[in-house]
Amino acid sequence: MNETTVTLVGNVATNVEYRETATGGVARFRFAVTARRWDRERAVWTDGPTSFYSVSAWRSLGANLAASVSVGEPLVVHGRLKVREEEHEGRWKTFVDVHALAVGHDLSRGTAAFRRAARPTAEALLPESSIPNPSPADDPSNVLVAAP
Amino acid sequence: MNETTVTLVGNVATNVEYRETATGGVARFRFAVTARRWDRERAVWTDGPTSFYSVSAWRSLGANLAASVSVGEPLVVHGRLKVREEEHEGRWKTFVDVHALAVGHDLSRGTAAFRRAARPTAEALLPESSIPNPSPADDPSNVLVAAP
Amino acid sequence: MNETTVTLVGNVATNVEYRETATGGVARFRFAVTARRWDRERAVWTDGPTSFYSVSAWRSLGANLAASVSVGEPLVVHGRLKVREEEHEGRWKTFVDVHALAVGHDLSRGTAAFRRAARPTAEALLPESSIPNPSPADDPSNVLVAAP
Amino acid sequence: MNETTVTLVGNVATNVEYRETATGGVARFRFAVTARRWDRERAVWTDGPTSFYSVSAWRSLGANLAASVSVGEPLVVHGRLKVREEEHEGRWKTFVDVHALAVGHDLSRGTAAFRRAARPTAEALLPESSIPNPSPADDPSNVLVAAP
Repeated sequence: MNETTVTLVGNVATNVEYRETATGGVARFRFAVTARRWDRERAVWTDGPTSFYSVSAWRSLGANLAASVSVGEPLVVHGRLKVREEEHEGRWKTFVDVHALAVGHDLSRGTAAFRRAARPTAEALLPESSIPNPSPADDPSNVLVAAP
Repeated sequence: MNETTVTLVGNVATNVEYRETATGGVARFRFAVTARRWDRERAVWTDGPTSFYSVSAWRSLGANLAASVSVGEPLVVHGRLKVREEEHEGRWKTFVDVHALAVGHDLSRGTAAFRRAARPTAEALLPESSIPNPSPADDPSNVLVAAP
Repeated sequence: MNETTVTLVGNVATNVEYRETATGGVARFRFAVTARRWDRERAVWTDGPTSFYSVSAWRSLGANLAASVSVGEPLVVHGRLKVREEEHEGRWKTFVDVHALAVGHDLSRGTAAFRRAARPTAEALLPESSIPNPSPADDPSNVLVAAP
Repeated sequence: MNETTVTLVGNVATNVEYRETATGGVARFRFAVTARRWDRERAVWTDGPTSFYSVSAWRSLGANLAASVSVGEPLVVHGRLKVREEEHEGRWKTFVDVHALAVGHDLSRGTAAFRRAARPTAEALLPESSIPNPSPADDPSNVLVAAP
């Protein structure tokens, strides 16, 4: 209830980090979204500023993503948005996280050969609410990318 | 203004039809979305009813989609939603259309090898508002699939 | 999982019907969304076609909505989208339903005096999955409005 | 193109600040979203962490919002999401902004008496792309609320 879902169309800004945890595998990366607007006066598209997000994908989505996605590729990312404020060495920092629910290569920008995975594992059939949230302390995406 | 955007996670229900028109190529297909709920009493996921949508994708998205997507494959479809009521032989019918903005294979369900297209054509750089809407009469997706 | 959520910005197209059922009160109405586009050549906004939806709101949202909303008023409707195909007297018909999660008067179009309800009832605190879906047969919104 | 739209359901966390600028009035406030989950083991709703956003609303939406909304009230906010990184005194800070397109009091939580505004002003009929973005330096919402 009151979940915020969001769909991001943009590009992978860092390598995808994948690791196994006690509660299943997780893939993480930074994602860049640049809105474009039609400039009526000059009759061209112009880029606006870029927004960066920390995306995490768990279980089969995480494993498939790590096996399929490289830095720079265009994606559609659909997931739950959260904003966290945390104190690190006396300073508050803000993190913008997207817990991915579904992710695909954006076919506006190229073609893709899809290969269906074998049947989902029992793990993938657990209810979503049993998915653990990563502890912020071990969230590698937070340190992967310095501010632009 | 007041556009309705929607993100659908589901499966391609028909073959992708692609054709060239005077205003560029367009790919069309029917798309099936089945929500699942966690049944607390039985502790299993249960499928809800399936919703069907008519998806159209224009220009480079349409061409890449036609080259990449087969019936049955799982996709994430992000686009603009419209509901049309039309009279056919004295009866009003309702069509639920999604004009795709970005589409990708859902990596929750498998892996994908992505290949970036050559540079976008001039056509792909036109403003969105110059994209023609298909005339309903020649919308093949409307007749491809009988009601379930 | 795989729920489709949507946010509609538009106007109430019919009176709000409210009734008590064995599983709680429900408010229903038809809702009209008209996208507008900036016409670059004429430098004016032009209306596109109008999409109609059948909105239902349950429990406290339904009761407050019935007490607050009149035909013609502008709303923001956030909810779950479903498309149903049903046979009536030998014909298949399509219904586009939005199960509202949150609804408010659109302050782009006027002002509103808000009055917080007393504490939520126990009923409002049940999990969402215990909310019954209306049977299509007794969905008054389906017959309230003839096709345009 | 590639705009990220989002719908937030939550509560106003600060007073609404309204001021006139050379390009029209703007209302700003901080907004708190707390997702709730059904705890299956204990059979109760539990609150998750709270996400904070800086919402800005321009022109007639801003003016009506300033006249209608008080701190603590529940709203539905639909708008465009942007994440900004900025340097202040040698530190990079992250801001999460929502440029509101439509906002209403959430009728899940109370009732509202709506009063339609007089005809929209000429200003309100300009294309969206002519709406100026606030300069970050004079964005009061950034300093209104200390990190939690």
